[in-house]
Amino acid sequence: MKKVYVGIIGFGNIGSAVAEFIKKNHQVIAANTGLDLELKKVCDTRQLKIAYPLTHQYTDIINDPEIAVVVEAIGGTVPAKKIILAALNQKKHVVTPNKEVVAKHMKELLAAAAKNKVQLLFEASVGGGIPIIQPIKESLAGNNISQIYGIVNGTTNYILFKMSSEKMEFASALKQAQDKGYAEPNPKADIEGYDAAYKAAILASVAFKAEVNWQAVYREGITGITQEDIQYAKDIGYVVKLLAIAQKVDEKIDIRVHPALLPANHALATVADNYNAIYVKGTPVGPLMFYGQGAGGGPTASAIISDIIASANSKFEIRNSTLKKAKVRNINEVKGKFYIRLEVPDRVGVLAGISKVFAQKKVSIAAVLQKESNGQFVTLIILTDKVVEKNLRAALATMKKLSVVHKIGSVIRLIA
Amino acid sequence: MKKVYVGIIGFGNIGSAVAEFIKKNHQVIAANTGLDLELKKVCDTRQLKIAYPLTHQYTDIINDPEIAVVVEAIGGTVPAKKIILAALNQKKHVVTPNKEVVAKHMKELLAAAAKNKVQLLFEASVGGGIPIIQPIKESLAGNNISQIYGIVNGTTNYILFKMSSEKMEFASALKQAQDKGYAEPNPKADIEGYDAAYKAAILASVAFKAEVNWQAVYREGITGITQEDIQYAKDIGYVVKLLAIAQKVDEKIDIRVHPALLPANHALATVADNYNAIYVKGTPVGPLMFYGQGAGGGPTASAIISDIIASANSKFEIRNSTLKKAKVRNINEVKGKFYIRLEVPDRVGVLAGISKVFAQKKVSIAAVLQKESNGQFVTLIILTDKVVEKNLRAALATMKKLSVVHKIGSVIRLIA
Repeated sequence: MKKVYVGIIGFGNIGSAVAEFIKKNHQVIAANTGLDLELKKVCDTRQLKIAYPLTHQYTDIINDPEIAVVVEAIGGTVPAKKIILAALNQKKHVVTPNKEVVAKHMKELLAAAAKNKVQLLFEASVGGGIPIIQPIKESLAGNNISQIYGIVNGTTNYILFKMSSEKMEFASALKQAQDKGYAEPNPKADIEGYDAAYKAAILASVAFKAEVNWQAVYREGITGITQEDIQYAKDIGYVVKLLAIAQKVDEKIDIRVHPALLPANHALATVADNYNAIYVKGTPVGPLMFYGQGAGGGPTASAIISDIIASANSKFEIRNSTLKKAKVRNINEVKGKFYIRLEVPDRVGVLAGISKVFAQKKVSIAAVLQKESNGQFVTLIILTDKVVEKNLRAALATMKKLSVVHKIGSVIRLIA
Repeated sequence: MKKVYVGIIGFGNIGSAVAEFIKKNHQVIAANTGLDLELKKVCDTRQLKIAYPLTHQYTDIINDPEIAVVVEAIGGTVPAKKIILAALNQKKHVVTPNKEVVAKHMKELLAAAAKNKVQLLFEASVGGGIPIIQPIKESLAGNNISQIYGIVNGTTNYILFKMSSEKMEFASALKQAQDKGYAEPNPKADIEGYDAAYKAAILASVAFKAEVNWQAVYREGITGITQEDIQYAKDIGYVVKLLAIAQKVDEKIDIRVHPALLPANHALATVADNYNAIYVKGTPVGPLMFYGQGAGGGPTASAIISDIIASANSKFEIRNSTLKKAKVRNINEVKGKFYIRLEVPDRVGVLAGISKVFAQKKVSIAAVLQKESNGQFVTLIILTDKVVEKNLRAALATMKKLSVVHKIGSVIRLIA
């Protein structure tokens, strides 16, 4: 049996779960893989009472000639990036669940791995325990992948799920997510879509072999979604989900994170609680979905351990990992359908005024639904046909100035 | 770029789809894998006008020194088994979507592959295009897998879905499945659960590294499921699905294929139309689900091509593939909850009589729901607590002889 020594840098929730299951599942891992995994050393800045040799110097791990695989479980970019590069340059395989550092520095990190003929693997960076990076790279290697829709942030899925299933308002659903430990005390990275944007960039890079600057990912969070939107969407057969979208259309990549109205019979629509799911379309495979727990020590450890095994078995060819720079379509050029909630004065001629603005800006209306009136104002839901986003924005900008519209409530993209 | 010559034996729907996408996706496969795949020769007993050299002798393929990977796309066991063994003995990797031959002869075929230091890969044999075998073997290699529930037969899922969504009776749903080409003119292998039983045996073998005789798979089809059962199940929050179940309980394997009442909020419950999905539970990963098209030329070709790539890259260690003989629990010893539909005379004392029989046989009743009466008989739905199957069977056998029960309608296992 081949002995594989592992070093873990950063011994929080994830690092310690990796340690736990390297030990607990030692026998099953050996039977499955022929590898004898052993955690040799842990690096953490804190004084910890643990059953493994502890160091405060990451160099003690990356300079240990016996250690073959280094797990970076610090998070963030500083000092994670420096440490990953140093480990790769010491010819250690590096496994990381760190979506931020991978999304922001993928090209540089992969180049360092290739130069040193070692692996940089990051299965755990998207979808937690869900096998997605490896299946895309290997099981779907014969496919032309055209589309990825991901529910890749458990916190926002939990909030939207509670808003839908229990008619909670956003603030109370967020509070509950925080109480359950799903959302951070500062929830910005989740609810404003940064976390999902990192993951979108990683998925697009892997699926399209393209360098995607994460800042090129158009991003909208869920803070503007109201209980009314959820209910109106339900009335017309849709659910609201925060999607990470990466798709190839005419040789360009659409890559964006935003709330979306998804048909209630879509495979992603029933993804409940804080689960994640990634929907992938390829030719010839057709639609696929991968579903599971997107966060938490156990699921993340599962993905990290599978990467440790993969790197130790050096199963992947170390291929030229140069990523072509992605041609990302500007959000203004993206075509799509829209749900628009307006508050308008409850009087004759309003709809004609609105219709005129849309027509002037080449926005074709598919349906108008009149909702509650409070005497003074009435809520209108407008569903558009497929339109170019900049036209829609122009129409909304014009409308803001008009007396026929009191308030533009929500504008949510529709997935047809 | 590494040239890989492929031979295909059997050029029906699947074989020709593999040929089509080896060609159509040549560039993307090269970019993804560094492999230059080329279909060198096709074997089929028929005279075919095709763009590839055609032979009627499979030996022309397996004796071709240039061909590295042989795709067996004949189906069935005769002559597929003989041809697979011959190809392996000629030191060709073999890729097959043939669930029957893999389920019936896995141990012998894997031993021949190991002896010859080549691969036998069968991703396409379960779940069509869904990556499941490779993720279990690799992405989940660090997990202790405890449970697999699979919707692995698209035909029966289509029938049950139509019975549920459109209140069709079994016979018309089957007819529609046949019209759509989902069901064979002779639908027995699907509707009586043979196809699912082969797949259950394969999944269990891979997940538990155990030799599972497919005949040890307890099997019930869906022919007894009525529209009433579907509706009564819905009333209590369940959907009826044909499940392939493989789980480890106390060191024994429960392996069975039967219709099951699944809670409507289970991840598998919303799997619609002819889709397949496989739900896997492991520690530490938790619950996962893999969803997609379980049949058809394109999806099957996707899985076959990924296996061609995997074998050509010889990524897997050829490990000792001796499978331990599985300890399969006899269905009589399995514990579970049941839904039982009875027709009973519409008179006093009936329920007391029934309850007495159940109590005598140690079957604890969780709920009794009285449904329609036709004046003479009334329908009762009985839900049991978790009971040992043989006790339930004994109770039903006794009941059949009693005047308090006119007819035992359906007996369907419940997934809690």
